[in-house]
Amino acid sequence: MSVLAEFSMSPMDKGESVSKYVARNLEIIADSGVPYRLGPMGTCLEGEWDEVFGVIKKCYERMSEDCRRISVAIKLDIRQGASDRLTAKIAKVEKLVGRELNK
Amino acid sequence: MSVLAEFSMSPMDKGESVSKYVARNLEIIADSGVPYRLGPMGTCLEGEWDEVFGVIKKCYERMSEDCRRISVAIKLDIRQGASDRLTAKIAKVEKLVGRELNK
Amino acid sequence: MSVLAEFSMSPMDKGESVSKYVARNLEIIADSGVPYRLGPMGTCLEGEWDEVFGVIKKCYERMSEDCRRISVAIKLDIRQGASDRLTAKIAKVEKLVGRELNK
Amino acid sequence: MSVLAEFSMSPMDKGESVSKYVARNLEIIADSGVPYRLGPMGTCLEGEWDEVFGVIKKCYERMSEDCRRISVAIKLDIRQGASDRLTAKIAKVEKLVGRELNK
Repeated sequence: MSVLAEFSMSPMDKGESVSKYVARNLEIIADSGVPYRLGPMGTCLEGEWDEVFGVIKKCYERMSEDCRRISVAIKLDIRQGASDRLTAKIAKVEKLVGRELNK
Repeated sequence: MSVLAEFSMSPMDKGESVSKYVARNLEIIADSGVPYRLGPMGTCLEGEWDEVFGVIKKCYERMSEDCRRISVAIKLDIRQGASDRLTAKIAKVEKLVGRELNK
Repeated sequence: MSVLAEFSMSPMDKGESVSKYVARNLEIIADSGVPYRLGPMGTCLEGEWDEVFGVIKKCYERMSEDCRRISVAIKLDIRQGASDRLTAKIAKVEKLVGRELNK
Repeated sequence: MSVLAEFSMSPMDKGESVSKYVARNLEIIADSGVPYRLGPMGTCLEGEWDEVFGVIKKCYERMSEDCRRISVAIKLDIRQGASDRLTAKIAKVEKLVGRELNK
């Protein structure tokens, strides 16, 4: 199974700018060894269920140390017999459209 | 911590009607003992992180037995020192609005 | 077409408690005449595309008057030849499960 | 106001592979002139409210021509006095982390 997850996690009680907290999570993600890709609205991870949710839980535990209210959105696309979808999904769409897309 | 989660999980490869698969998940959820509430677009659960994600993982494992592609959306609102938010959040909004709302 | 939408909208710059802003939106929603249902994690609306997004835009315009950063999540389930799904989807799942569910 | 939106839109009634329908939407998006960025789990758009939702509605109208059930997820991050956030948000996080990230 390829579990492709996109997630975003933000404190609600730290005011308008939350990039410090997002950066902290990205360190956890980059150090995890799980393939990932940072986007403007969230980070995509690919792996087995427990790998992916292991990383998300670590981010949550770190954020809960100093944040009182946390908002999280997780979207999953899980598919049997698939792999390398962090890059393969975009490549397939681009091929079908037949021109270069912004990515 | 009160981890309030709403999630929906659907097979992509079973055609237009997926209520059979949703019903199967609701049996898992209702049997879990974790407080829940079924809505038109998803099910809300409230508990600790591991309780909530334990139930969601069970639903995923059951669905992956006979579905090849699965789409999942999870939204979390996590708050320190809060509880009973499956009902308390709605009650608070209704009190502030000062009239009965559809719920 | 039945456009069934669930949405949540919160300011990021008003601290931990945002119920005042949610309540203000619920007044707009309840006054719109579009069928709705308030849940613990968002509000479901049912109508045509323009009806549903007309209400959501009104909520956004009101919130942008005094909030500098706003987070919104919208999930849509759109289906031809369907109607009354604010109640019908839950009823169908409950019938399939064969017992009363929390709702 | 910078309305930064990520959205994904898939038919529920066309089986496991939906890339044909995603590609069709990407043509609409790329032709719209609204700045966008394709990712593994959705497409981000940046503009004013009506620009962004104008593009999403066009995608919906095209898909509803030959699909009976459609699932859509939209996430918005709206911020006053901000711009160019399709690239600026990632750059800021990378600077804070102090090393190159996968993006």
